[in-house]
Amino acid sequence: MVPPDSYADEPWRDRCLANYIVRGKEPFNAEARTDTLVDSFVTPTELHFRRNHGPIPRLDDQEWSMAVEVCVDAAAPVRRCSRVVRKCDLARLPQFEVVAVLECAGNRRDGLKAIKPVDGVTWGAGTASNARWAGCRLRDLLAAAGVPTDLCDPFYAAPRHVEFAAYGDAVEDEHYASSIPLEWVMNPRNMVLVATAMNGAPLLRDHGFPARIVAPGIIGARWVKWLKRIRVQDRESDSFYQKRDYKILPPEAGRANCAGFWPRFPALMELNVQSAICRPAADECLQVGRPYLAKGYALTGAGRAVDRVEVSLDDGETWALADVCAMHEGAAAAAGGERNWAARDWSWVLWSFRIDSVPQGCAIACRAWDSGGNTQPTSAIWNYRGVMNNAVFRVSPPTVASGAAPASRL
Amino acid sequence: MVPPDSYADEPWRDRCLANYIVRGKEPFNAEARTDTLVDSFVTPTELHFRRNHGPIPRLDDQEWSMAVEVCVDAAAPVRRCSRVVRKCDLARLPQFEVVAVLECAGNRRDGLKAIKPVDGVTWGAGTASNARWAGCRLRDLLAAAGVPTDLCDPFYAAPRHVEFAAYGDAVEDEHYASSIPLEWVMNPRNMVLVATAMNGAPLLRDHGFPARIVAPGIIGARWVKWLKRIRVQDRESDSFYQKRDYKILPPEAGRANCAGFWPRFPALMELNVQSAICRPAADECLQVGRPYLAKGYALTGAGRAVDRVEVSLDDGETWALADVCAMHEGAAAAAGGERNWAARDWSWVLWSFRIDSVPQGCAIACRAWDSGGNTQPTSAIWNYRGVMNNAVFRVSPPTVASGAAPASRL
Repeated sequence: MVPPDSYADEPWRDRCLANYIVRGKEPFNAEARTDTLVDSFVTPTELHFRRNHGPIPRLDDQEWSMAVEVCVDAAAPVRRCSRVVRKCDLARLPQFEVVAVLECAGNRRDGLKAIKPVDGVTWGAGTASNARWAGCRLRDLLAAAGVPTDLCDPFYAAPRHVEFAAYGDAVEDEHYASSIPLEWVMNPRNMVLVATAMNGAPLLRDHGFPARIVAPGIIGARWVKWLKRIRVQDRESDSFYQKRDYKILPPEAGRANCAGFWPRFPALMELNVQSAICRPAADECLQVGRPYLAKGYALTGAGRAVDRVEVSLDDGETWALADVCAMHEGAAAAAGGERNWAARDWSWVLWSFRIDSVPQGCAIACRAWDSGGNTQPTSAIWNYRGVMNNAVFRVSPPTVASGAAPASRL
Repeated sequence: MVPPDSYADEPWRDRCLANYIVRGKEPFNAEARTDTLVDSFVTPTELHFRRNHGPIPRLDDQEWSMAVEVCVDAAAPVRRCSRVVRKCDLARLPQFEVVAVLECAGNRRDGLKAIKPVDGVTWGAGTASNARWAGCRLRDLLAAAGVPTDLCDPFYAAPRHVEFAAYGDAVEDEHYASSIPLEWVMNPRNMVLVATAMNGAPLLRDHGFPARIVAPGIIGARWVKWLKRIRVQDRESDSFYQKRDYKILPPEAGRANCAGFWPRFPALMELNVQSAICRPAADECLQVGRPYLAKGYALTGAGRAVDRVEVSLDDGETWALADVCAMHEGAAAAAGGERNWAARDWSWVLWSFRIDSVPQGCAIACRAWDSGGNTQPTSAIWNYRGVMNNAVFRVSPPTVASGAAPASRL
């Protein structure tokens, strides 16, 4: 819960505001214009969306510490441990870097709000972006706290979870907290980091300074910022953000009756397959008869690969392959001494598609396919919290007759 | 390639033929009527579909052996090893049992053939079924051959694959062979077995006697039968069934131009989210105004969970939750001394949905959602080989006025 005047110490954001569509000031929520996202594979920090559930805590790099706790009663012998971890402790562990896309589960919520009201901040397709994240692996930090690295260990016979709690206040709960399954963290195929840097610089306050979770392939809500405590436990986080948000409830669940549905459906984890057309933007004017290079992004979850992106110019009747600029295998480069033994697909891909001659009444649609045989639904499927909308992306930009002066941006 | 008279020694199948819709006699390909599949969570062996690419080899349990080879040149030190493995060697390893659904990637190909011709056997929704598979873990067999069990080992720095080759002839290649990534096999979260038993009995010849691969969460084409050789290598299998089949090619690829597309798209591995209505069958006559209990199955890939199944009676306008009889966590019970440390969702789920009053012109649709945030496409998306069709399942059974004698099966 957020006391009065809590937003008096927000970061200074004036210089970057021009890059954003601001969706809320307190808490500060802003997304990039999607047409700015396709210029670079690694999104510049100043274009990276900002998603908050409360005021930004002010933490001091040198004073900062977090608790790392293991509270597992069911294991024999009972494992309990608690230690204080500072920046210098993180720096002593092997350092890794991973290029990974961060996507909010509410990305493209606007498409669901267009069907029926939903509970949640309005977002276009600008709450996804790719960054170079660096820090130590959470796996190594937990191993140092006594958590077994061998996934065959009887410790893993029962479900275990890692809860992340943040400094600062939050709107819907005492503070922000969330959890993911422990085995996901301890699996060396995955790359969950306690990140201290983004795109080669210390994290901005808006992005979790001084340390945040980076959980590639998983929804942004689990990438907890301003880390205060990491705890291995027998159950999921009891937080609002784990239990009463970030779930796909069935269509019959709404505000009035959602209470009965929350416990019946699981907390979201993996991202689903997603794509968006970034150029043309919805307000970009195209010239009829001229060629145009459409561009966008595509991504998917859990380390799966985007196998292809397709574009349709006839409302989904026929589809043609887009050119994909992928960064498979090499995407997650190792910064430390240890080799990143088996890179999976944690990045987004950018794609382009040449329209030889822009038609009158141009309508462009895109969809991606991933290595799980999944593609995007033809139309959006409403759910109460407006999460995980990955419907086929459509844009119908205005057109002018060729030769006419192009209209300026609306 | 199959010499003449190769089908002279097929198993005796007369007794079970009544259970099947036979799609091809040489090779023998047959699926269950789907209305027979929903009576038991574990499908009886005599209802389990049979899918072959050639004649059934006759192998002797006691004489049988397979080669286990490690041929990895890139590793330092170079790892090369070859050994002969017999039934008694498999029996000496810890024994496991897993309840897992086997689905052919061509399941529901009929829905794609209805759009445009495709290359492949016609299948309805009867090429999916659940069984109790037992044997040793492939992981343990490979570990005994010197493959590192630690996924952080530098051995895994480069991609490795495990190729499975079968005894016997095949129609499209010299023999049947296929591969999956080694790290999938060595990950203790997964349960790839060298199975020797199905539903508590030795494998039938049609199901791979005396030993086959069971790779839960992965398409049936990788569950190679009649094992002749298992080989760890640096690349995928060069087999027809890996390189020129079992891929989702883009819509523009067809028989005339597919050669250029095969190398550009990856071999299928994970199953996608799928569901089918088994009752009513398409030819079952319902009584208008009476209640009816619809039933079906749902499944997904890679260990993900089926989070829910929904049914629509108004052509997808509205959806309501079906009752799901799941077998989470406990589904993969351990038969051996070692605990199956962390069960994932390898089984299908069966579901039911009560229609209170069957309407005139009854049309029923179902779709499932999985823990990756995926659901099924509204309509089928054609591809040249007709694989991975997981469109929303629809059935419009005939109806009679209530009170009239129900029509017998057509």
